[in-house]
Amino acid sequence: MTPTPVLKPLLETVLGRRQQRLPIWIMRQAGRYLPEYRELRAKAGSFLDLCYNPELASEVTLQPLRRFDLDAAILFSDILVIPDALGQDVRFEVGEGPQLEPVTADSIGRLDPKGALEKLSPIIETVQRVRAGLAPEKTLIGFCGSPWTVATYMINGRGSADQAAARLFALTQPAAFAQLIDILVEASIGYLAAQLQAGADVVQLFESWALNLDEIAFSDWVIEPNRRIVEGLRKLVPGAPVIGFPRGAAGNLPAYAETTGVNLLGLDYATPLEFARELPSGLGVQGNLDPLRLLAGGEQMDVRVRQIVTGFRDRPHIFNLGHGILPETPIAHVERLIAVARGT
Amino acid sequence: MTPTPVLKPLLETVLGRRQQRLPIWIMRQAGRYLPEYRELRAKAGSFLDLCYNPELASEVTLQPLRRFDLDAAILFSDILVIPDALGQDVRFEVGEGPQLEPVTADSIGRLDPKGALEKLSPIIETVQRVRAGLAPEKTLIGFCGSPWTVATYMINGRGSADQAAARLFALTQPAAFAQLIDILVEASIGYLAAQLQAGADVVQLFESWALNLDEIAFSDWVIEPNRRIVEGLRKLVPGAPVIGFPRGAAGNLPAYAETTGVNLLGLDYATPLEFARELPSGLGVQGNLDPLRLLAGGEQMDVRVRQIVTGFRDRPHIFNLGHGILPETPIAHVERLIAVARGT
Repeated sequence: MTPTPVLKPLLETVLGRRQQRLPIWIMRQAGRYLPEYRELRAKAGSFLDLCYNPELASEVTLQPLRRFDLDAAILFSDILVIPDALGQDVRFEVGEGPQLEPVTADSIGRLDPKGALEKLSPIIETVQRVRAGLAPEKTLIGFCGSPWTVATYMINGRGSADQAAARLFALTQPAAFAQLIDILVEASIGYLAAQLQAGADVVQLFESWALNLDEIAFSDWVIEPNRRIVEGLRKLVPGAPVIGFPRGAAGNLPAYAETTGVNLLGLDYATPLEFARELPSGLGVQGNLDPLRLLAGGEQMDVRVRQIVTGFRDRPHIFNLGHGILPETPIAHVERLIAVARGT
Repeated sequence: MTPTPVLKPLLETVLGRRQQRLPIWIMRQAGRYLPEYRELRAKAGSFLDLCYNPELASEVTLQPLRRFDLDAAILFSDILVIPDALGQDVRFEVGEGPQLEPVTADSIGRLDPKGALEKLSPIIETVQRVRAGLAPEKTLIGFCGSPWTVATYMINGRGSADQAAARLFALTQPAAFAQLIDILVEASIGYLAAQLQAGADVVQLFESWALNLDEIAFSDWVIEPNRRIVEGLRKLVPGAPVIGFPRGAAGNLPAYAETTGVNLLGLDYATPLEFARELPSGLGVQGNLDPLRLLAGGEQMDVRVRQIVTGFRDRPHIFNLGHGILPETPIAHVERLIAVARGT
């Protein structure tokens, strides 16, 4: 007799099967709001050193599940490991955010998509370690940054409020920009396939900077590259479960949902609950509490959490924030959040 | 016999009567991309000095209409003249953006809504001067910043990418925040009424920072204050024509359009043309070319301009950008934009 396989409620929900138990995870759940993270972080070297250290990165990944009743671990890493693995100079200076040596139309050809996967192998080892340390009913989420979002950092050299450098590059040098996107699509497919083969149950595409694109640019640089990643990934890993999170997609959300092939859609906190009517029926959603409501806590948080749970009860729903948890968030608010969302 | 009144195509469009001539204006059309503006700006003192100088501000307002075939002048001013007039310390340091002495829950009561209109009287004189210098078929647009947007600067003391300081203030000190919004609603009503009485044909409410609010906050701090301004303004100026521009409202646009009572809705460039289907039928729209497409110019600009004109041809439409024109924009691109939009 083979033992009955243990179902993972969060993975089942991604696959479109709504569960009795509301699955919950929290974007950036392994992070600075946790004292145990801050303690470990102080012992590691640079932020990228930590991302490439399987022992420490797997420990950080598992920390929030020891403390909270969450349904998933998400790989501790960063969306900028792909440019780093492609050979771009990427640094994280303390208190400054990421700094990259900007790519140009001429330098894009020197990026090395073939060698990237080898450089990312410590992160794949982290995935294996996390899976080994995770209870069988918990889902392990892998991820990468989507090409447009990663490209905005690669071109501008750092984060920016309006992504103007990348947007202008795409308008004025479309062939070079398409070449960059192609490289990122290829690298992302290989990287996500390796994560799934190493034990990740589902992967999330973080399109964090999709908010300043008109519908032509959104279609060319968000929808199409995300669609190609989902398609390419499923050639390597048939049926690969994918969560798409195009933050700020707003009016472009329905087109993203209909075209990319993602199994489930992450919603940012600005998306009204009623807006889900515009999405394909039965499509699952993830989200979407404002992290500031969690930080502020109290009655206003409880009210909104209940609204979200009720608002999405007619479709597969993973409870989450609509953006990453803030470093100043009190632990007690997180405990309260989980209890209210589960109705206990 | 009284002479036939001269129709203003842009004003008629705001009032819901689609015109043979496609009306056009450009957000920030009086600004740094114009050499004649830069020349005059160098002669003025501080930026606020220029806003409060009727002779120079009226000249700046009229500059773009001497150069381009536009249908409207928009008052040259700034959304932060209201906090300045309320008694908050507001400075514009060159190259630094606005800097305000942040208000606190305790200092809000010291703002002076009664005295604000007197302090704004030079701007009302500017409106009179512009009207006197403007051809009768041209529309004069007055404006103010909407309360939420102005409050984000008043609380944070400067612009910010995520408006977190104001959002947290509103969550944790809702009574004080409501008091601040009340003051801004009152000051805005008096200020806009004075602009209309001095010769403005229509006013625009600039809600520039509406993008990071969930639907509860959007309803409380965007929709409701804008609705109160429209209602209060029409008590003082019956039938006052109002354009609402809630940039980044995204999924909250339909609720804004249905509730505030604005005559016509400004759309940011991220709003897909098809999204207008979600709006009340017959409601006019304004927009929505990405200013970077105008900066980059060429075929991609022409294509998108034609798409926008075609996409909105079944409702009243004012052609505009979806955000302010950028200082580096070539004059020739603006000339081309107007020609393509008018189909000549």
